[in-house]
Amino acid sequence: MALSEERIQFLRKDFERGFIKFCGIKAWEIKEGYFESSTEIEPHHRQQDGFIHAGLIATMADHTAGYAAFTLVPEDHQILTIEFKINFLRPAVGERLVCKSKIIRSGTHILVGESLVLDLQGSAEKEVAKSMVTLAAVPAAKLRKEKT
Amino acid sequence: MALSEERIQFLRKDFERGFIKFCGIKAWEIKEGYFESSTEIEPHHRQQDGFIHAGLIATMADHTAGYAAFTLVPEDHQILTIEFKINFLRPAVGERLVCKSKIIRSGTHILVGESLVLDLQGSAEKEVAKSMVTLAAVPAAKLRKEKT
Amino acid sequence: MALSEERIQFLRKDFERGFIKFCGIKAWEIKEGYFESSTEIEPHHRQQDGFIHAGLIATMADHTAGYAAFTLVPEDHQILTIEFKINFLRPAVGERLVCKSKIIRSGTHILVGESLVLDLQGSAEKEVAKSMVTLAAVPAAKLRKEKT
Amino acid sequence: MALSEERIQFLRKDFERGFIKFCGIKAWEIKEGYFESSTEIEPHHRQQDGFIHAGLIATMADHTAGYAAFTLVPEDHQILTIEFKINFLRPAVGERLVCKSKIIRSGTHILVGESLVLDLQGSAEKEVAKSMVTLAAVPAAKLRKEKT
Repeated sequence: MALSEERIQFLRKDFERGFIKFCGIKAWEIKEGYFESSTEIEPHHRQQDGFIHAGLIATMADHTAGYAAFTLVPEDHQILTIEFKINFLRPAVGERLVCKSKIIRSGTHILVGESLVLDLQGSAEKEVAKSMVTLAAVPAAKLRKEKT
Repeated sequence: MALSEERIQFLRKDFERGFIKFCGIKAWEIKEGYFESSTEIEPHHRQQDGFIHAGLIATMADHTAGYAAFTLVPEDHQILTIEFKINFLRPAVGERLVCKSKIIRSGTHILVGESLVLDLQGSAEKEVAKSMVTLAAVPAAKLRKEKT
Repeated sequence: MALSEERIQFLRKDFERGFIKFCGIKAWEIKEGYFESSTEIEPHHRQQDGFIHAGLIATMADHTAGYAAFTLVPEDHQILTIEFKINFLRPAVGERLVCKSKIIRSGTHILVGESLVLDLQGSAEKEVAKSMVTLAAVPAAKLRKEKT
Repeated sequence: MALSEERIQFLRKDFERGFIKFCGIKAWEIKEGYFESSTEIEPHHRQQDGFIHAGLIATMADHTAGYAAFTLVPEDHQILTIEFKINFLRPAVGERLVCKSKIIRSGTHILVGESLVLDLQGSAEKEVAKSMVTLAAVPAAKLRKEKT
């Protein structure tokens, strides 16, 4: 299933809603089985020691992996995170975070994504976190029922 | 080491800074080896399907476990998250999230916390996520060097 | 769905096969949504430092959680591990390991189990590992197809 | 720190002891920050459905990552697993498993490894599991005290 330009535009917009918009996380490159996002760091992204908060990094890792999964499922399916695990490799201190997610297992119901989060400071780029994300593809109609 | 009222007040304030303040997550009950937090849900906490975003839930799970660890380490130590894993047990849709974190392994350098996130809607309370968090206790002086 | 004595006997036998039999892990208490197992430690269970090997502990945590899931699904379903995470809380050195697994999320397709592994030495009992296990319930007929 | 031929021979021997020898897991390629192992599959490695047991796969992922860490620490240090997480990507059915582990974060105290487990059947090779492993480097002298 090739990814249409229309679908790419839809996913780009869909990505940046609600909590993600609030956090300032933006969609970047989108390919089949791959999604990249980026966040300009502002003071409210940091924690008590001045490092970028692990929660923001985890939010990028989770959400970006979810949209990498969206590029591989039928258009009437939604993606839910079943679980994820994230290792923080070194403190993030820079001006911009970039998250690169790819799908390493693409089943009908269960997909597994891997997210790498990079910290950019001037021309330096450091890996700050790596995550494995288990995702479920669920027909949208079924999901709507669960909310009511 | 008993937890002084002064230390409790310090941790309560320290908890609600930066990204955590931005997300609206508040400190609640604090005891030795235990920390509880709470978030009033607003529209910007949700994701594209109306559920509360996994990233907010993960941020609560991580940060609250970190402060449960703070209650057990010397006052000149900081806590950093080494890694965490979180399972989303059911979609969160309610008006308030509560996170209860307790330390299940308290070493000199490595602590392990467990966080349970509950979704409150009216009088109903549901477990929506469970997390295991591995934390490092680091002397503050050592941490300051790492930033420069 | 109450658990029949027949089903309990079946699960007890089914538990102790292949790699599990080879490792000497035995079924113990079985209840709805709960499974307990036990291993008498022998020299070949240890690693280079004399501690019980993390791999044996992980095998108990995974397999016992899987059989806790078996107590909750229809009899024509099999359980597969999607993923698990395990924290080693302290070195295990004793004469016997006990693993207690309970299901904390019981969905039609996805179940989540929690395993606690205890180390028994004389009359002392220590928690040595805690694990979260994500499991899939799959109709046996579908699984047979995957093997061919 | 270059890895001496002597050290490589030591690690190769040290790898194959206790539970690992019992399981038939063998050391293979060893480089700085990298370790590869291999297991010839026998009937006692399988589970009730004929698949290779997740516990064996996890044991390889954990132990091999641990020895990848051994290639990077001083010779008087031991490696302990703090925690790991493993995703099972597809059922393993083949004749031989290969595990490739590399260290992605090499700190003084905390190292993080990544293990990929491959299933070989005839000339076909499939990724069956991926794991992230958090490891502690501990002076051997300190470890000996913990056992007594």
